[in-house]
Amino acid sequence: MTTLPIPPMAWDAWGDPERAVSLSESQLALVHDALGVSAADVDAVPREEVELRPSRLTEDDVAALAGAVGAEWVSTADADRLPRAGGKSTLDLLRRKQRGAQDAPDGVVVPGTDEEILAVLAACEESGLAVVPFGGGTSVVGGLDPECGKARAVISLDLRRFDRLESLDETDQEAVLGAGLSGPAAERLLAARGYELGHYPQSFLYATIGGFAATRSSGQDSAGYGRFDEMVRGLRVVTPVGVLELGRPAPRTAAGPDLRQLFLGSEGVFGIITSVRVRVHPLPEVREYEAWSFPDFASGVAALCEVEQLGTGPTVLRLSDETETALNLATVDEAGGDAAPAPGGCFAVTAFEGPAALVPGRHAATAAVFAAHGGTSLGDAPARHWAQRRFDGPYLRDPLLAEGALVETLETATSWSNLLALKQAVTDVIQAKFGEYGSVSLVLCHVSHVYDTGASLYFTVVGAQKGDPLAQWRDVKAAVNDVLMAQRGTITHHHGVGADHRDWLPQEVGPVGVRILQAVKATLDPAGVLNPGKLIPPA
Amino acid sequence: MTTLPIPPMAWDAWGDPERAVSLSESQLALVHDALGVSAADVDAVPREEVELRPSRLTEDDVAALAGAVGAEWVSTADADRLPRAGGKSTLDLLRRKQRGAQDAPDGVVVPGTDEEILAVLAACEESGLAVVPFGGGTSVVGGLDPECGKARAVISLDLRRFDRLESLDETDQEAVLGAGLSGPAAERLLAARGYELGHYPQSFLYATIGGFAATRSSGQDSAGYGRFDEMVRGLRVVTPVGVLELGRPAPRTAAGPDLRQLFLGSEGVFGIITSVRVRVHPLPEVREYEAWSFPDFASGVAALCEVEQLGTGPTVLRLSDETETALNLATVDEAGGDAAPAPGGCFAVTAFEGPAALVPGRHAATAAVFAAHGGTSLGDAPARHWAQRRFDGPYLRDPLLAEGALVETLETATSWSNLLALKQAVTDVIQAKFGEYGSVSLVLCHVSHVYDTGASLYFTVVGAQKGDPLAQWRDVKAAVNDVLMAQRGTITHHHGVGADHRDWLPQEVGPVGVRILQAVKATLDPAGVLNPGKLIPPA
Repeated sequence: MTTLPIPPMAWDAWGDPERAVSLSESQLALVHDALGVSAADVDAVPREEVELRPSRLTEDDVAALAGAVGAEWVSTADADRLPRAGGKSTLDLLRRKQRGAQDAPDGVVVPGTDEEILAVLAACEESGLAVVPFGGGTSVVGGLDPECGKARAVISLDLRRFDRLESLDETDQEAVLGAGLSGPAAERLLAARGYELGHYPQSFLYATIGGFAATRSSGQDSAGYGRFDEMVRGLRVVTPVGVLELGRPAPRTAAGPDLRQLFLGSEGVFGIITSVRVRVHPLPEVREYEAWSFPDFASGVAALCEVEQLGTGPTVLRLSDETETALNLATVDEAGGDAAPAPGGCFAVTAFEGPAALVPGRHAATAAVFAAHGGTSLGDAPARHWAQRRFDGPYLRDPLLAEGALVETLETATSWSNLLALKQAVTDVIQAKFGEYGSVSLVLCHVSHVYDTGASLYFTVVGAQKGDPLAQWRDVKAAVNDVLMAQRGTITHHHGVGADHRDWLPQEVGPVGVRILQAVKATLDPAGVLNPGKLIPPA
Repeated sequence: MTTLPIPPMAWDAWGDPERAVSLSESQLALVHDALGVSAADVDAVPREEVELRPSRLTEDDVAALAGAVGAEWVSTADADRLPRAGGKSTLDLLRRKQRGAQDAPDGVVVPGTDEEILAVLAACEESGLAVVPFGGGTSVVGGLDPECGKARAVISLDLRRFDRLESLDETDQEAVLGAGLSGPAAERLLAARGYELGHYPQSFLYATIGGFAATRSSGQDSAGYGRFDEMVRGLRVVTPVGVLELGRPAPRTAAGPDLRQLFLGSEGVFGIITSVRVRVHPLPEVREYEAWSFPDFASGVAALCEVEQLGTGPTVLRLSDETETALNLATVDEAGGDAAPAPGGCFAVTAFEGPAALVPGRHAATAAVFAAHGGTSLGDAPARHWAQRRFDGPYLRDPLLAEGALVETLETATSWSNLLALKQAVTDVIQAKFGEYGSVSLVLCHVSHVYDTGASLYFTVVGAQKGDPLAQWRDVKAAVNDVLMAQRGTITHHHGVGADHRDWLPQEVGPVGVRILQAVKATLDPAGVLNPGKLIPPA
C-alpha cells in the first residue's frame, strides 16, 4: 500500500485510461488490409501478469532518503515505481507489453523544497544512487529511462509538490511557476488572474513547467507565443553543488553568456529545475480561426514562409501534407465533424488571438498572403475542430500498436530552402527501411513551428510490426537520424535528446561542443547522480 | 614604418578625426558656469609627446607569429600597437591623456583564416603570450585592455581580414558574415543584394559583426529587428582546442542546451568568433517616422510598455526623460534643426519599417496607444532628425572631457514594474557621489530597448572632473553598480562585462554560475591565452 500520489497517465499507454479509444471499422480495415497485421500477431503480456524487477534500495538507502524528505515521501512500492518507469515513446510502450521483468526506478521520492532536493542529491551521492527527475512522464526520447550510470540503483524524483503559482506581476506580465505544475494546472492558476502562458505542446495535458524548460518544448501556438525557451525569463535550479537562481528581473542582459540557456534543454543532467519565471499575457480578447486548403505542400510552405518573414502575426500556423490531409479527413468524417475540408490538397490551420483592435488586421494580412499563394479558405469550422481535438492524437497509437501496427512520430527542423528536400529524404528512408522488413508504410507530415529562416517537420509513421518491433523501430529511426544529420536537419526540433538521440548529438554540436557539455556536467554533478545515460555523449 | 592597416578611429578619441566637433558657446558656458571647470584645469599630454611602453615580444615570438600568419601580417610597431591599445570608455580616453608610458598590446597579428588563428593560438600557448581579439575597438567596458594574465606579453589579434559576405540565401533570409566586417561594410554588402541586417548600435560605424556577437550587442532598431543575439543562427568559433561550427541550418532545435549562447556574450574569453550566420530581411519598402511628446516620463514608459506587450510592431521605440529632452532640444536648436520638439515633457521617437501593406497599420496601432497615454504627436520631422544624427552623440564627449567635464554613459535593464524606481535610485547615487566630490552633475536618461517584461535604461552623466578623474569615475561607477545589484537591475544591458563589470558578475550569475564559466574556460582555453582579465571572475 502506497502513500504517494500516482501520476495520472496509464503506465503502459498514453493519457487517461478513461479516454482510451478503439479503432473504427475503417481504421481496422486499413491495418488489416494495407499492413497485413492484426491483434493476433501481437504477443502482449496482460496487465495482471506484469512483473517488476525488485527494488535494489537497501534499508539504509531508504532511511537516507527519508532523512532528506520525510518517510512519508519515499516509496519502494511497485505501485509507485511502475508509473514512473519511463516515458511514452513507442519503444517505451512496446517494452511494457513484453514478458519478463519490467525495469523501473528502484524507488520514488517526492521532495517539497529546494533544500530537500539538495539533501536528496547529497544522500544519493553518498549512497551511490542515481536520480531521474520526473514531471509529467511524457518524454518520447527515453529521457526517463531508469538508468544507473555508475550508481548502484536509481530513484525517480517526482516534482509534483512544486505546484504553486509563486507570483504574478501584472505590470511585467511575468509569472513564477512551480516546476511540477502540469500545463492545465498552470493555465488554471493563471486564468483565475486573467492571464495565460499559451504553451500547448501535444503533451500539454500531462507535461510540466519544469519539463517544458528542461526539454526546450515547443507548443502549437509557437507562432504567436514563441517556444517555451523564449518565454523563460528566469530559472531556479538545484544542482549537487548548490542552487542557481538565473535571470535577474532584467528582461535581457549582456552580462556574459546567457547561462539560463545551459539549463534550458539540459534534461535533468545538470540540475533539477524547481521554478521557472515566464512571460505571460492577458487572456485574449478575441480568437479567430481560419482553415485553408493549398493545392500542394510546396505552395503551402511558401505561404507559411512569407507569413512568418513578413510578420503578419498569426498565433497558430500549421500545414499538413497531402497524406496527412487525406487521413485527417477520414478521421474528421468518422468523428462526425461537421466541417470536412475539401478533398485533396493540403490542409492548413491558422488562428489569431489577442486584442480586438489588432486581431482582424493580423488575420486579414495572413489571409492575403495565403490567397496569393493559391490557398482556398475553408472557413473557421475545420480550424476550430482541429483546436478542439488537438490533444487527442496520441490516444490512437495504443490500439494501433495492439493491432500489430508500428506507429511513431519523429520530428526535425531545417531551413526553408531545404524543407521540401529533407521531407522527401526522410519519407524515402522510412519507406525504404520498412520495405526491408516487408512492410508498406504510411508517412504523414506537417509543419507546425515556423521561424523566419526555417521550420519544423513533424512526421507520423505507420507500418507493420515485423519480428521484434523494438529492434525494427530502432533500425528505422537510426536510418532517419543519419539522414537528418547528412541532409542539414536537426536531430530534434522539440522532442529532445534523452537516451534515444544521444548518439547523434556529437554530429549536432561537434567534438568541442561535446567537451563543453562534459565539462559542465563534471562541474555541477561530479558524482554523476543526475539522469545518467541521457543527453551527454559518454567521454 | 608599418605594413598593417590601421583601425579607422582616432586612438585617443571617438570616431573619425575629421568629424570631431567643438563645443558651442552655450555648451562651453554650461561647462564653465554650471560645472566650474575649463580646459585650463585639464593636464592632457599633447599627442606628439605620447610615450608607449616598448614591446616585450622577442624575436622568437615574432618569428612564431610570423610562422602562423606570414611575416607581413605581424607588427610590433608603435603605429600599429597604439590604435589597438584599448576601447573607448571615458576611462580609456582619460588614460590616453595621461603622462607616462601608455600601455598597449606588445604586437599585432592580422590572420586571414581559421587555420591561421588556430596556429596563432598554438604559438601563443607555446610562447606564453596572451591574445586580445580586436574588431572595431569600440568597447566601453575595458574589453580590449591589453592584459597579460599569466602570460609574458599580449598581442592584439585584428579580425579585419574576415571581411566577406560568405553567403546569402534569399529564401531563408539568412546570411553568413565575416566577423571582421564593420556594421556599414556588412550593410553595404547586403544592400547590394537588396537585404539589410538592421543592427544599429551607437557603435555601428566602427564595431564589427564578431564584436556584436561576442558582446550581445543591441541596436537602436531592436524593437523591430531584435537584439543581435536574436539575429544569430550560427557561429564559427576558433578555440585553442579546436574550431566549433554551432547552429545547424535548423532555425531552432531541442538538441540539448543552446551552446551558441555560451559564445554570444563570451567577449573573446572562450574563443574567437570568425563568422556569424544571421537572419536578414529585405530592404524595407517603406519607412515612417513619428515623434511624440509625453507630459512626463512615467506616462511615456506606460505607453512603451503597452506597445510592446500588445505587439503593435514599431521598429524603433525610444523615450527620453525630461532632462535629456531639455538638453537634446538645446542641441537641436543649435544644430539648426528645423524641427524643434515642443518644450518640456519627454521626447519619444517611433519608426516603422517594412512592407507597404503592413507599416501603416503598425504605425496607427502604436500611435493610438501613445495618444491614449497622453502623448502628443510632434510629426515626423523630429524623429527623422534623430535618425539622421543618431551616431553623432559620442563625438561630443571628447571636447567636454578636454574642458574638464567628466562625461560617461552607463546602462542597465530591469522589469517594467521596477523601471522608475531604479532610474531614480541610479540618478540619486550619481548625484550623491558627484556631490561628495564637490560637483553638481547632470543625469540624462532614455529607454531605447523594450521587451514584453521590461526595458533598458541608458544614462548619460555629466559632472566636473575633480582630482584624479579616473579614480573619481571608478568610485562613482562602483556605487552605481552596487545600486544596480541591490535594486534588481542587470550590471549591463548591452555594453558587456569586460574588465570594468567583472567584479559584479558573481552577483549577477551566482557562485555556481561563476564555476560554470570557469569550467568552460578551463576546457576551451586551458593555458589562459584568450583575453585575460575580462568577463570571468578569477578563481
